[in-house]
Amino acid sequence: MINFSLFGAGRIGTLHAANIAASHPRARLSYVYDLDPAAAAAIAGKYGAAVAPSVDAALGDARVDAVLIASPTNTHVELITAAARAGKAVLCEKPIDLDIERVERCRRDIAGAGVAIQIGFNRRFDRSHRAVRDSDVGAIELLIITSRDPGPPPHSYVKVSGGLFRDMTIHDFDLARFILRDDPIEEVFATGSALADPALAKLGDVDTAMVVMRAASGALVHINNSRRAVYGYDQRVELFGAKGMVQSENLRPSSLRRYDGGATDAKDPLLNFFIERYQQSYLDELHAFIDAVANKQQPAVGFDDGRCALILADAALESMRGGRSVRVNLASRAV
Amino acid sequence: MINFSLFGAGRIGTLHAANIAASHPRARLSYVYDLDPAAAAAIAGKYGAAVAPSVDAALGDARVDAVLIASPTNTHVELITAAARAGKAVLCEKPIDLDIERVERCRRDIAGAGVAIQIGFNRRFDRSHRAVRDSDVGAIELLIITSRDPGPPPHSYVKVSGGLFRDMTIHDFDLARFILRDDPIEEVFATGSALADPALAKLGDVDTAMVVMRAASGALVHINNSRRAVYGYDQRVELFGAKGMVQSENLRPSSLRRYDGGATDAKDPLLNFFIERYQQSYLDELHAFIDAVANKQQPAVGFDDGRCALILADAALESMRGGRSVRVNLASRAV
Amino acid sequence: MINFSLFGAGRIGTLHAANIAASHPRARLSYVYDLDPAAAAAIAGKYGAAVAPSVDAALGDARVDAVLIASPTNTHVELITAAARAGKAVLCEKPIDLDIERVERCRRDIAGAGVAIQIGFNRRFDRSHRAVRDSDVGAIELLIITSRDPGPPPHSYVKVSGGLFRDMTIHDFDLARFILRDDPIEEVFATGSALADPALAKLGDVDTAMVVMRAASGALVHINNSRRAVYGYDQRVELFGAKGMVQSENLRPSSLRRYDGGATDAKDPLLNFFIERYQQSYLDELHAFIDAVANKQQPAVGFDDGRCALILADAALESMRGGRSVRVNLASRAV
Amino acid sequence: MINFSLFGAGRIGTLHAANIAASHPRARLSYVYDLDPAAAAAIAGKYGAAVAPSVDAALGDARVDAVLIASPTNTHVELITAAARAGKAVLCEKPIDLDIERVERCRRDIAGAGVAIQIGFNRRFDRSHRAVRDSDVGAIELLIITSRDPGPPPHSYVKVSGGLFRDMTIHDFDLARFILRDDPIEEVFATGSALADPALAKLGDVDTAMVVMRAASGALVHINNSRRAVYGYDQRVELFGAKGMVQSENLRPSSLRRYDGGATDAKDPLLNFFIERYQQSYLDELHAFIDAVANKQQPAVGFDDGRCALILADAALESMRGGRSVRVNLASRAV
Repeated sequence: MINFSLFGAGRIGTLHAANIAASHPRARLSYVYDLDPAAAAAIAGKYGAAVAPSVDAALGDARVDAVLIASPTNTHVELITAAARAGKAVLCEKPIDLDIERVERCRRDIAGAGVAIQIGFNRRFDRSHRAVRDSDVGAIELLIITSRDPGPPPHSYVKVSGGLFRDMTIHDFDLARFILRDDPIEEVFATGSALADPALAKLGDVDTAMVVMRAASGALVHINNSRRAVYGYDQRVELFGAKGMVQSENLRPSSLRRYDGGATDAKDPLLNFFIERYQQSYLDELHAFIDAVANKQQPAVGFDDGRCALILADAALESMRGGRSVRVNLASRAV
Repeated sequence: MINFSLFGAGRIGTLHAANIAASHPRARLSYVYDLDPAAAAAIAGKYGAAVAPSVDAALGDARVDAVLIASPTNTHVELITAAARAGKAVLCEKPIDLDIERVERCRRDIAGAGVAIQIGFNRRFDRSHRAVRDSDVGAIELLIITSRDPGPPPHSYVKVSGGLFRDMTIHDFDLARFILRDDPIEEVFATGSALADPALAKLGDVDTAMVVMRAASGALVHINNSRRAVYGYDQRVELFGAKGMVQSENLRPSSLRRYDGGATDAKDPLLNFFIERYQQSYLDELHAFIDAVANKQQPAVGFDDGRCALILADAALESMRGGRSVRVNLASRAV
Repeated sequence: MINFSLFGAGRIGTLHAANIAASHPRARLSYVYDLDPAAAAAIAGKYGAAVAPSVDAALGDARVDAVLIASPTNTHVELITAAARAGKAVLCEKPIDLDIERVERCRRDIAGAGVAIQIGFNRRFDRSHRAVRDSDVGAIELLIITSRDPGPPPHSYVKVSGGLFRDMTIHDFDLARFILRDDPIEEVFATGSALADPALAKLGDVDTAMVVMRAASGALVHINNSRRAVYGYDQRVELFGAKGMVQSENLRPSSLRRYDGGATDAKDPLLNFFIERYQQSYLDELHAFIDAVANKQQPAVGFDDGRCALILADAALESMRGGRSVRVNLASRAV
Repeated sequence: MINFSLFGAGRIGTLHAANIAASHPRARLSYVYDLDPAAAAAIAGKYGAAVAPSVDAALGDARVDAVLIASPTNTHVELITAAARAGKAVLCEKPIDLDIERVERCRRDIAGAGVAIQIGFNRRFDRSHRAVRDSDVGAIELLIITSRDPGPPPHSYVKVSGGLFRDMTIHDFDLARFILRDDPIEEVFATGSALADPALAKLGDVDTAMVVMRAASGALVHINNSRRAVYGYDQRVELFGAKGMVQSENLRPSSLRRYDGGATDAKDPLLNFFIERYQQSYLDELHAFIDAVANKQQPAVGFDDGRCALILADAALESMRGGRSVRVNLASRAV
């Protein structure tokens, strides 16, 4: 049995708590910690867990095997470090941090701790995206990731988000690395506009973006993002190679098609947002983590994947600001 | 060069005239005949043909090789017979006639004339329906034909149409025979309702129908018809066998897909009606006829195909009226 | 908390046990009974339930609220009756029985017991099929149900199955009634062949069938069945009415599409069989039952729905044997 | 009646000749000129035209209204200039030339000639791409053009092609301008690799490319190209805006879908290449030109469209070589 302490009782923490408590026969939710004890109590009460009075309390119980970090981004590094030092396995939501220097320092701090650390790039566990990766298209030549949110976030969120590339595109950067496997990205070009919400420009952010990247093999990657797609959460991947092409298409709540005087073949709007679209991948991500912990293996998505995604996001930001492509060396920054 | 006399200057005659005059390097429109000389003159003038003052005039010119019969159904038998006796090849719109006895008599009358006679079952030439027939699905087990018109015809037409089965379903009966190849249909069950236009019931007709047929091999055929599909002219074929399934799907004016807050994947409404949907198949039908005439071969869709389709339509009507399946022997009625 | 006794520890009983034990916060598996105690023990051990030494023991515990009957068909009537008399709510797999007389007798025997009885027509809970029912297509005119199994069952199963219509088509009969709502089916025509496994003919059964039915409104229903679809479990519903059409399409394990030199747009084969295809509907069916029991309401799919589906299956069999359509009066047989 | 002189009797000239001679009631092919008189004679003989002994002869006949230039690219400027000076309307295949300076000079040379000049960007006439442009998606935010050839050209062609951007992507640059309407592109980033045919690198060319462009409004454009798509000629357009998204999807020879043990929903491979895919758009392009000439109007796709597409291609090449985005001012270079 794997006993979890959960940090963060917000929306994503609530989702993880339900998954821990209800989906896996070997998982149990032991503690919930949140700055807001009422929020922690609401989750804890539902699943028979205890409210932890402090981080230390949630980490100090020897029966706790793993922690799930779903607290605000600026607490991640500290919690990862504390958990690793306490010998607990870690499943931490993305991003590790918005500051690559802090990420590098964290990396050094936890080196040798010998605990499993998994970063919450849940899209790697989406069965359709994963099927893209597992498909044989021959040598990869073009990868196109379309990733559009249903609606823009509030400005209060934008201000602490690190900007589009570090907050939203970071998933796509990771997905690109996942699909390219051992072909490292070497060059990044990005540009963006504030079109859905022009006021974002004053915050130094964009809501519409395009990225082009080159991998060492010469394979090319395109990402396009929007913060506002009126037809729902648009999540597609297209992989093209010497032997053909595969696409991971959007999902919908049902397989219904409608025909009337205005249209034919019409499907429902897309699943609203990530909670709905990636419901199964959150579950599969958790199960993969539990299996890794139970079998004392390294998780498939590790700390370094979080670090590399942030490096790419930083390069995109630098490219957009400088109007030129930026070279990255994902390998050389390793400690 | 194949010179044509055209009988009938209505909508379908106009279409055929354009195809004869503009699409095939070896075809020429020589005469047009219609009870309404002005209608004939309109077509003749456009394509450099002569208005024939009589049927005999249109058939009497030795330079005429072929006739295209697009006049009202009740004139078909007489025109086919006269053309055959005059030694002209015939392409006659469906149905041959509404009365199987008249069809049988015509058959005897033209036996030995030695001319090519093709019946206008143009759907046999539709490239998608034809691809269904040419697909290898193993032994055929289920065939499902969906055939729905965009809107009901006027009562004046219904009264002389011979009813849904002889007017509309007759295309589907022929398509079923085309796809089943040499596996003869032996049993027919049909039922229908007047739902789109309940007043049809007083005319003894229906606008909504379902048919089930058995072939000698045990293969089963379903046809469903409606006289009113608000999303356009719905023409689909599904063929299922031991090795898989193929479907001929609907066509649309463009490949556009639309996504908005109400729907995703929405395509345009279907092509409005047979003129638009089967534009290419009318052309291909004509070219096949011209090739048969030029090469002195029998056309692929012959008089007997028109006769068999009518026998199936009659059986469907008898089945609907009697509430039981009706056995047919398509072979035994041959002269 | 709703405590369940489970009768039957076979494949479908195992599925229901997992759903009871793992999916609903208010459900608990208390007893498992099977003629094979080892099978019962395997399930009971997994979910902390007790093996019941007898039916009476599983029904006699006052803490048991509900029974789930997943035992062989010929035990259903006896178990429904015993459970109803013991005051337990019942969720019984389809069919109630293969003999309509036994069903009618059971109906009289349990009249007045006042317990919730739900029949396991799980397809009513499929979200896509349900979306068809909930769609506004105007007055219903045509309903087409395609239902094909991936492969034929063994002859040992066929012999006790009651034949294709009572074993397989019965789901489609119920689905037709579900979608037609209060428009009763009045007439049934059916025909069939043994094509996938010709040896079935010697057992008096078919594996390929077509049904046409008329409802009181004049709406027409078509069902086509096959016991062997090489591309997977084919489950589709098409509903056509005065205002348009909706279709419930097949589901697949992922949204992947493939393009190569042989094909484009290719999707994965269909989900293999009912366990995979209707995984969610089994869950939703159970939750609906639990809610009905908890709220002391009648379930949405009752005993009479099981009775009516069997009447339609019997009529189909009679029609196929007699070569004519058979009239049914679903209302008049009520006790 | 519009009389045409055709320059160039190669593959594309043959296509245009057939369209001129067979598709439009007001068009006639009068002269054919080619350096290879036999090639010219083959076309001329088929359509009753004369073989012109020289360019001057083909331009000197006062009955000639228009010229269609389908000769090698390096002859375009000279022929456009000569035709314009002779007062003939011009439909010239793309590109105008590979050297922007020669294009600018040509522009000055023909200024004031007062003849209609249309450049052969036939994709503007594709009904699906055009439907994208005509769709209301609100303010345009993202435009994604996928354009992949079925197979790489021979090196002999590559050497004189001007490179991928000026030869192949130029169509996509024009299509982007067509869809963006009066929102000018201001910035171009491009990168590419030689993956399908690595030997291209020695020729200084690529076969795999990605482009990102910014328009004045902030709208972003992505183009991806490959010289080798094993599943056929892949031509798609996706337009995303404030009110939704539209896509122009690929076309296929039929609407057939196949289902078997390996795949479901499989369609035919895509139409092989531009001759097949854009068959209708070549026709529609010609008809638009004829109408413009007949009505003494400027064609919809003019000389300046050819010039602007070349400027974008040049910018892409410069960007790829320099590793940075390149600003363009499409308006300022006007004479």
